[in-house]
Amino acid sequence: MTELKNDRFIKALLRQPVDRTPVWIMRQAGRYLPEYREIRAKAGDFMTLCSTPELACEVTLQPLRRFELDAAILFSDILTIPDAMGLGLYFSEGEGPKFKKTIDTASDIKNLAIPDPADKLRYVTDAVSLIRKELNGDVPLIGFAGSPWTLATYMVEGGSSKTFSKIKALLFSDPTSAHLLMSKLADSVAVYLNAQIEAGAQAVMVFDSWGGALTTRHYKEFSLAYMQRIVDQLIREKDGQKIPVVLFTKGGGMWLQDIANTGCDGVGLDWSVDINLARQQIGDKVALQGNMDPAIMATNPEVIKQEASRILADFGHGNGHVFNLGHGITPNITPDNVAALVDAVHDISAQYHD
Amino acid sequence: MTELKNDRFIKALLRQPVDRTPVWIMRQAGRYLPEYREIRAKAGDFMTLCSTPELACEVTLQPLRRFELDAAILFSDILTIPDAMGLGLYFSEGEGPKFKKTIDTASDIKNLAIPDPADKLRYVTDAVSLIRKELNGDVPLIGFAGSPWTLATYMVEGGSSKTFSKIKALLFSDPTSAHLLMSKLADSVAVYLNAQIEAGAQAVMVFDSWGGALTTRHYKEFSLAYMQRIVDQLIREKDGQKIPVVLFTKGGGMWLQDIANTGCDGVGLDWSVDINLARQQIGDKVALQGNMDPAIMATNPEVIKQEASRILADFGHGNGHVFNLGHGITPNITPDNVAALVDAVHDISAQYHD
Repeated sequence: MTELKNDRFIKALLRQPVDRTPVWIMRQAGRYLPEYREIRAKAGDFMTLCSTPELACEVTLQPLRRFELDAAILFSDILTIPDAMGLGLYFSEGEGPKFKKTIDTASDIKNLAIPDPADKLRYVTDAVSLIRKELNGDVPLIGFAGSPWTLATYMVEGGSSKTFSKIKALLFSDPTSAHLLMSKLADSVAVYLNAQIEAGAQAVMVFDSWGGALTTRHYKEFSLAYMQRIVDQLIREKDGQKIPVVLFTKGGGMWLQDIANTGCDGVGLDWSVDINLARQQIGDKVALQGNMDPAIMATNPEVIKQEASRILADFGHGNGHVFNLGHGITPNITPDNVAALVDAVHDISAQYHD
Repeated sequence: MTELKNDRFIKALLRQPVDRTPVWIMRQAGRYLPEYREIRAKAGDFMTLCSTPELACEVTLQPLRRFELDAAILFSDILTIPDAMGLGLYFSEGEGPKFKKTIDTASDIKNLAIPDPADKLRYVTDAVSLIRKELNGDVPLIGFAGSPWTLATYMVEGGSSKTFSKIKALLFSDPTSAHLLMSKLADSVAVYLNAQIEAGAQAVMVFDSWGGALTTRHYKEFSLAYMQRIVDQLIREKDGQKIPVVLFTKGGGMWLQDIANTGCDGVGLDWSVDINLARQQIGDKVALQGNMDPAIMATNPEVIKQEASRILADFGHGNGHVFNLGHGITPNITPDNVAALVDAVHDISAQYHD
């Protein structure tokens, strides 16, 4: 394997010294880029982009050609696992992801099989291998998956939800089946992320987009416990290199200590969290990734620099910060504003690293 | 004024001893009740219901005829103030509240006048007087308003929003104008709530539905500071009776100590908060109102009792708990499940009060 030319991201996640705070952006390969929209239009549909390794590789690399990002992230979707389980993922215009089949009964859950990543998810590991080769060691490649709870919400609701009434009815009324579902999903995510690591992913991240919709008790019992189960199964070192794992629960600001206690390397912070307070709470255990409000990206380079500067100052001197937004970048952002952010983070952060 | 026959709600908010934990339900006068849907259909439109005191009174009282609730809450909308400011509130089917005019510029903000409650909001105080008379002292009447930040989001976005991009652009790019807007709204809410108190409201609540969308710094600067400004201006005692004030920020679980420090009497808790932890944090300063997950209401009486029991046990012995959901009840709930909740809270809570 080629040695990494830029290993700031990996080092920061391992809380080792770096010269600048590394930065990448959730959804950095996405609709705010004209070249993405062009290739997306040609592909015709989102799943074609995800499932064609050459296209997934191309869109993964697009933002790196424009910006001095410190990491690439696999272009894919969090819902590849339920799709591989046979639920039939599709995207309807303006309504987000949908499933043709949903999980409605205890026997639906019993019948779910853990997908073999070498079979129905082969397109993902093929994309990882190809991207890793094309990156040629410039920056590390991040693999990812959805959290068991987050995947379960889509599988039971059939798509996005505001109230999560069906999946919550399952938790409250049939916790045994709910636990079986989460177990199967946790094991599926673990083998899937390990396959991404074997194919070349140098760090992995679990997105718990909907953990914040739960009560504290249910979060710990049905979301965090299964992210813990994933962390426990992951390959943490390969070819002599540590493979850091990041857990991100949107809306999880009250539970940072619990998340840090899973043994993960990094904790993602949404924008509501005070990063200074978060560092006081868990900075001796884990690195922090985040946490600028994505809405700031819609302003102008001056405001963006000022807010980036504030977050860097709030984190302060020393190791263990990966700069990012607190959630995915939205389609309405101009690439110039992204360039302003990336450059600002590198310029301003030098003073916090000796 | 007639003496209150049931003053559990007021006493609990003042952290005084009660025989049972009082319970009311956010949106208790609402679409889950067939008799509400009937009167709503006759009225034709939502604003007619709100702006006709006899109709507002009728729907306010409907849930009290079915359930042993410990408080009534004025039937109204959080957006009456911006409507009275001339923005033209209307409700489009399935899309929620909308404004005909939006606040787009600094001069739009300068031109906003604080509405005189005796003028364009007279229908609200008339409804309060009528409800208070009809209640005849059975239970106390809660008045309410939206928080300045929450009102501002609708006024600038023109309706509901997922990203709050316009209002946030205002905060980030023109904080001076944003502060002027919040000041005017805070003063408008304060005179409005005081008018409700003068008309007969025996407690008031400020709903900060969207405070949780802010960064910690912006929450304190643009939402909480203006709720503080409201608390400072409110009538806190009338005819020898304390008028408790409750602040509720949905998604504000990380900021409970700051909210409690405003000098309010009660803090609303959404369902994500651990009420036991919240009591440890702020229970010596304020009462807690909440915090059952509204999704539990869609299950069955047995699960509802079990979860209510858990929350009561989590709060534990002693004073200062008003039972409620962590957010409004949804239209899909059966009245039988509501009856099960109300009765369960009264039955189970006796053991926590000596």
